Amino acid sequence: MNAPAQASHVLPHVQPRPVPPALIEALQARFGAQCSTALAVREQHGRDESAFTDVPPPAAVVFAESTQDVADAVKLCAQHRVPVIPFGVGSSLEGHLLAVQGGVSIDLGRMNKVLSVNAEDLTVTVQAGVTRKQLNDEIKSTGLFFPIDPGADATLGGMSATRASGTNAVRYGTMRENVLALEVVTAQGEVIRTGTRAKKSSAGYDLTRLFVGSEGTLGVITEVTVRLYPLPEAVSAAICSFPTIADAVNTVIQTIQLGVPIARVELIDAGTVAIVNKYAKLQLREQHMLLMEFHGSPAGVREQAEMVQHIASEHHGADFEWADTPEERTRLWTARHNAYFAAVQSRPGCRAISTDTCVPISRLADCLLDSVAEADASGIPYFLVGHVGDGNFHFGYLIDPDSADERARAEQLNRQLVARALGMGGTCSGEHGVGLHKMDFLVQEAGEGAVAMMRTLKHALDPHNIMNPGKVFAW
Amino acid sequence: MNAPAQASHVLPHVQPRPVPPALIEALQARFGAQCSTALAVREQHGRDESAFTDVPPPAAVVFAESTQDVADAVKLCAQHRVPVIPFGVGSSLEGHLLAVQGGVSIDLGRMNKVLSVNAEDLTVTVQAGVTRKQLNDEIKSTGLFFPIDPGADATLGGMSATRASGTNAVRYGTMRENVLALEVVTAQGEVIRTGTRAKKSSAGYDLTRLFVGSEGTLGVITEVTVRLYPLPEAVSAAICSFPTIADAVNTVIQTIQLGVPIARVELIDAGTVAIVNKYAKLQLREQHMLLMEFHGSPAGVREQAEMVQHIASEHHGADFEWADTPEERTRLWTARHNAYFAAVQSRPGCRAISTDTCVPISRLADCLLDSVAEADASGIPYFLVGHVGDGNFHFGYLIDPDSADERARAEQLNRQLVARALGMGGTCSGEHGVGLHKMDFLVQEAGEGAVAMMRTLKHALDPHNIMNPGKVFAW
Repeated sequence: MNAPAQASHVLPHVQPRPVPPALIEALQARFGAQCSTALAVREQHGRDESAFTDVPPPAAVVFAESTQDVADAVKLCAQHRVPVIPFGVGSSLEGHLLAVQGGVSIDLGRMNKVLSVNAEDLTVTVQAGVTRKQLNDEIKSTGLFFPIDPGADATLGGMSATRASGTNAVRYGTMRENVLALEVVTAQGEVIRTGTRAKKSSAGYDLTRLFVGSEGTLGVITEVTVRLYPLPEAVSAAICSFPTIADAVNTVIQTIQLGVPIARVELIDAGTVAIVNKYAKLQLREQHMLLMEFHGSPAGVREQAEMVQHIASEHHGADFEWADTPEERTRLWTARHNAYFAAVQSRPGCRAISTDTCVPISRLADCLLDSVAEADASGIPYFLVGHVGDGNFHFGYLIDPDSADERARAEQLNRQLVARALGMGGTCSGEHGVGLHKMDFLVQEAGEGAVAMMRTLKHALDPHNIMNPGKVFAW
Repeated sequence: MNAPAQASHVLPHVQPRPVPPALIEALQARFGAQCSTALAVREQHGRDESAFTDVPPPAAVVFAESTQDVADAVKLCAQHRVPVIPFGVGSSLEGHLLAVQGGVSIDLGRMNKVLSVNAEDLTVTVQAGVTRKQLNDEIKSTGLFFPIDPGADATLGGMSATRASGTNAVRYGTMRENVLALEVVTAQGEVIRTGTRAKKSSAGYDLTRLFVGSEGTLGVITEVTVRLYPLPEAVSAAICSFPTIADAVNTVIQTIQLGVPIARVELIDAGTVAIVNKYAKLQLREQHMLLMEFHGSPAGVREQAEMVQHIASEHHGADFEWADTPEERTRLWTARHNAYFAAVQSRPGCRAISTDTCVPISRLADCLLDSVAEADASGIPYFLVGHVGDGNFHFGYLIDPDSADERARAEQLNRQLVARALGMGGTCSGEHGVGLHKMDFLVQEAGEGAVAMMRTLKHALDPHNIMNPGKVFAW
């Protein structure tokens, strides 16, 4: 028997606050054409990749071109106690951008300058609207790269705000480990800097990491300084097919436990491989698959690959199929990054409800296999991909957004999965954030006391609850 | 011309608050023999390795044996609005443990149990009083190790509270990167948990990293979950001598910029080598020296070492002297870890004023060489060691604690060094924390706005200012 759909999924907390005309007039006076109230613009800024619908859009959109623009917009909104919702490219999966309490969207997309590349120090400082692909394009000549790669071509500001990661995190860490410093506009419209370009510091509270993962609820991130890495001398990518998910996962578990510094190791289940094949016109073998990449010196890469191939063969893995040229590798990883979009297109008109649990690696097989069995039994179409080296995986339940029943069944699967992951010492969110979708899960995971502490911090820094209100936890 | 010694160094903010007899009686009633008011015990808990003297000790010491003990002690102190100072082994270099506003010391040394080793997940959870050496002893049979190694055999709780690092941080990161989860007693005496055992998470504010580096000012850390690493298959340590500090530092800079995953790379200047030789009865060549360690597969270690040897030879480095056996390596690293104590003993009766700047690696040579010139010109004896792979180094000015003039000159050197490091995009503290000693520097580094935000957080979580008051920033 399924429990009824939880309150948060029908969004009863959609309670737009009044936006006084005086604020709109003041924004238009200050920003001119940089401020839009056109319905199409507002609607574009009032939705994201989540399965939430029917939330009214923000009352206005300010296209910020500088930190001063952001500070001025926040100050005006603060005077009127009107919500502020920072916007990057709109790729959130958890409803972060929805104007559930109304307010003004601040679009940082025009703040897209790479401000300073310090190649010798392996750092770069960018405006918050720079996207990850843009950054890697602009630093190509330095021989360095920025490894964090969520599926979407998200902005560095948005990635910081959600503590994003992606396929390279197993080796290079997440935004948590890779953001060195931020510039932030506070809820009062003041500009502060957190952190320095030093690689480590014990100087005061870690404001940088307080803002990384704060999902726009404490301030607007306007600049980001991140670490870069030397492009590896040698890169090899390989695919390995397995008869069962258990075999694939156990290969990963042993690889991690042995300390092999694998750069990427992604699981794609057989059904999702078929979807990707169709979408990207590929001929991948339609079995459960690990997609791997090795970085290092030529000898180091060879050594790592031999170790993993040996482990895979003990778990019934097929021979590695190598992608040796940069073009082949790009094609494979593009396919992986497009899995989400391929899956959504595989059922016309559907929306994906994404799960995002992450568990200690020793529990990965248990967590994943029980959840696959439940998903198979449910009859809901789904895709399954995973950053399995980190213990993080995503089911995407492909629901008809107009079917309350499908939505309820998918959310029930999600709840069961989260309960299972929490029972194993895991988290409800490896990389997507809480947004609107996991507010109940956060309380289950962190406990009332820890959430109360988060609320205390929020009340202290944003006493009028204007920064992206209604997200992460209840006010 | 030297500026006068700054206010913070003569500690005008020593303002013990009254500790009501009723609190002492209540603590004694609750804790019996676990609560001591003996002068010797209080004095031992009222000092650390900093150069501060003449601060009255705490009014009582509670030897906590459980989280409940800590919570009860904090609750009693909170009722009476009396300060609480968490105590590990007393190895702070920055005055963290001094009872500048009076209060009660909570000694966590008896909370020294390793609670659960999850070898398959490369994690361990310990009580806060477990020391780093104890932890590595207790997990020896698992084939794993915990890399963070400040000079002292500090507790994991203290290391978390100061965001400590050490010689392995260049490869394995600091406490910032390696603490997964905490149990904390809040300023209200409530027990919360932050984080999970999952390797990454985007679920809510990063309370873990808010407490890592909070120096006891937001709560008492009672349990710590940290990452472990597989013991490398091969380890090689080598010493290389250089005619100038610049040659040594430039070797390091190039090594880091090339992305060589060196596990340790420490600078010891010629004078300090002489001190260490005398203290540890070694015969190291008394030149500027890099002490290095390489971790990996046998082939990987060979490859790394060859690359660094090649870089060193281009910078006039002597041939590597290898320490091949575990015993030789332990002897070398023990010598490095004892450099501080060796230096302090080299001038009987002295106290060391330690600097702790950390700069982006491209500026390391400039920062270090100018500071060496200043130190040489000052006539103050000093030692110089550095985690140079991170851009972090320590001068220890060995002053006569009764000489106001020496103290003033040493602090002036420190101020000049910090100003230089901040101008280069660095930090005043790489790993020791702010404590009493760097409160002014923190404001210079972070700016008034960021420090005001830290203060807002402190006021929100500890409204009566009972958690280690008078440290990090002014109330």
